Amino acid sequence: MDSPVKPIDVVIIGGGPAGLSAALWCAELGLGSVLIEQERGLGGQLRHVYNPIDNYLGIRAANGLEMLSLFEKSVGSRNFVPRLGIKASSIDFAAMEVRVAGLGGHEERLSFRALILATGVRRRVLGIPGEIDFRGRGILESGSRDKEKVSGKRVLIIGGGDAAFENALILSEHARTVRVAYRRAAPTARRAFVDATKHRDNVEHISGMNITRILGDSSVERVESRDSSGQTRTEPIDAVLIRIGVEPNSELVSRAVDLEESGYIKVDHKGETSIPGVDAVGDVAHFSSPTLSTAVGTGTTAAKSIFHSINKLKQL
Amino acid sequence: MDSPVKPIDVVIIGGGPAGLSAALWCAELGLGSVLIEQERGLGGQLRHVYNPIDNYLGIRAANGLEMLSLFEKSVGSRNFVPRLGIKASSIDFAAMEVRVAGLGGHEERLSFRALILATGVRRRVLGIPGEIDFRGRGILESGSRDKEKVSGKRVLIIGGGDAAFENALILSEHARTVRVAYRRAAPTARRAFVDATKHRDNVEHISGMNITRILGDSSVERVESRDSSGQTRTEPIDAVLIRIGVEPNSELVSRAVDLEESGYIKVDHKGETSIPGVDAVGDVAHFSSPTLSTAVGTGTTAAKSIFHSINKLKQL
Repeated sequence: MDSPVKPIDVVIIGGGPAGLSAALWCAELGLGSVLIEQERGLGGQLRHVYNPIDNYLGIRAANGLEMLSLFEKSVGSRNFVPRLGIKASSIDFAAMEVRVAGLGGHEERLSFRALILATGVRRRVLGIPGEIDFRGRGILESGSRDKEKVSGKRVLIIGGGDAAFENALILSEHARTVRVAYRRAAPTARRAFVDATKHRDNVEHISGMNITRILGDSSVERVESRDSSGQTRTEPIDAVLIRIGVEPNSELVSRAVDLEESGYIKVDHKGETSIPGVDAVGDVAHFSSPTLSTAVGTGTTAAKSIFHSINKLKQL
Repeated sequence: MDSPVKPIDVVIIGGGPAGLSAALWCAELGLGSVLIEQERGLGGQLRHVYNPIDNYLGIRAANGLEMLSLFEKSVGSRNFVPRLGIKASSIDFAAMEVRVAGLGGHEERLSFRALILATGVRRRVLGIPGEIDFRGRGILESGSRDKEKVSGKRVLIIGGGDAAFENALILSEHARTVRVAYRRAAPTARRAFVDATKHRDNVEHISGMNITRILGDSSVERVESRDSSGQTRTEPIDAVLIRIGVEPNSELVSRAVDLEESGYIKVDHKGETSIPGVDAVGDVAHFSSPTLSTAVGTGTTAAKSIFHSINKLKQL
């Protein structure tokens, strides 16, 4: 007969800023916690920020890794040991257990009293031929990081949001030409970014445009597109940056907890989802504020709210 | 005839961490903002934190003023100019105007498109004789700050929450005796704090106790108390620290926006109150997480949410 396993106070899924802040506060409040992160390192999206970060109150960091090292210092002082390379494969909400799998195929169940989902978002993909094959061979990962590589080149940026236009500003400093192509009639980026690109002679906006294929031999050479009238054409291009938004990593819980129409997890102001004892924090629950400070703040809020629930503290 | 006044995009009431984070993000997003703070300096409760702060991810500060100087550096780089010594006296939600009064009696109306309430909380008072008169004359402001002053003295701490017990730990290092007196049958402080005080020989807990008067000549000499059976007694004491919790500064809007039973402002996960265009952030809306990171996070979340609303961006 199996002996009953003592549940962990809080299991945290995801080691980005939201998960790290939750872990810090579990330690602060004396709650036992286990944080699992499927990558081999902590930080989530911070690992892919190549710009300076100056909108998290109190810190200016040269890039995401510098911010991450400050965050790791904070949690490191609390005897916090994350479990890296561990992926949550399913959750049994009735039994309050997460089934996890290690990189080596090892499986395990973690029994919890409370669960914090900090699974973040991922970049949307176009799902067109060439998009995967040419990664690193003409398809750029980051405008900031790869700006030197586009000197004198013709760059296509796919997308009409903030990230697309922010990258257009960065890359137009180096590239011969930058085209920003988006499907809608107008870009959704903030006006400041769009207006700024209008002052650049080498930046062109193309609305109502669907990119259908990325073509080339050993690297990107051409793209095929279809405009709103259905006309298809192919044109030469040297580099492509795809910034068509993000989508929430909510599949793990999508059949159990209530989601917004957009797929983001529904939460209240304390981070609680539709299932008692299950909270969601950071980008996966905050469509309109995918920011470092909202991530850190909601991680803390959830840990505090769980602490109150576990200790049955009532609002006076 | 009055010419119509162009409304300010966002008026922020309160210059603590939540208001400062909102101001930073208004600047980041190109929203015009005016932040009013009734005190002569920014920072809110940070001005009264004398302990090291190590639970805001990424920064360790020796005390509140050190953290504040980092926060001021962040907002200072954005041409942010707060309006200090300005108090909001009333809000006309139909006209979307805040009436404000300066220290000199000067009055003004600020017309807004969106309003962020970041008014925080204040310490509860007992409302008993001596409580005001003996401030600074035996009634301590802060355990950390005043710990040297209690060497060899008999200290009474009034309150049964985290702050009371945290201060008991600090003051028992210096005082002759520390009594922690609270009205309830059991303390509400986290177990770690309560347990730690049990290992101190000079700390005593007294439950079910109402302090009714603080007495003395030029400074605190005695307190009068009533226990749960109604018995009154007077005993000698040298110093008193009152930590009976906080209450939200929500009076300004209490007739207009929905409040929790406790008086805290009701908000959703984006910081929106029951009135469109009016958000509440930080402690005044977060009973269970009166923390620096929740304050900073919710300030950002509200600014982003207002930006989305003003730009009529829809969730995809």
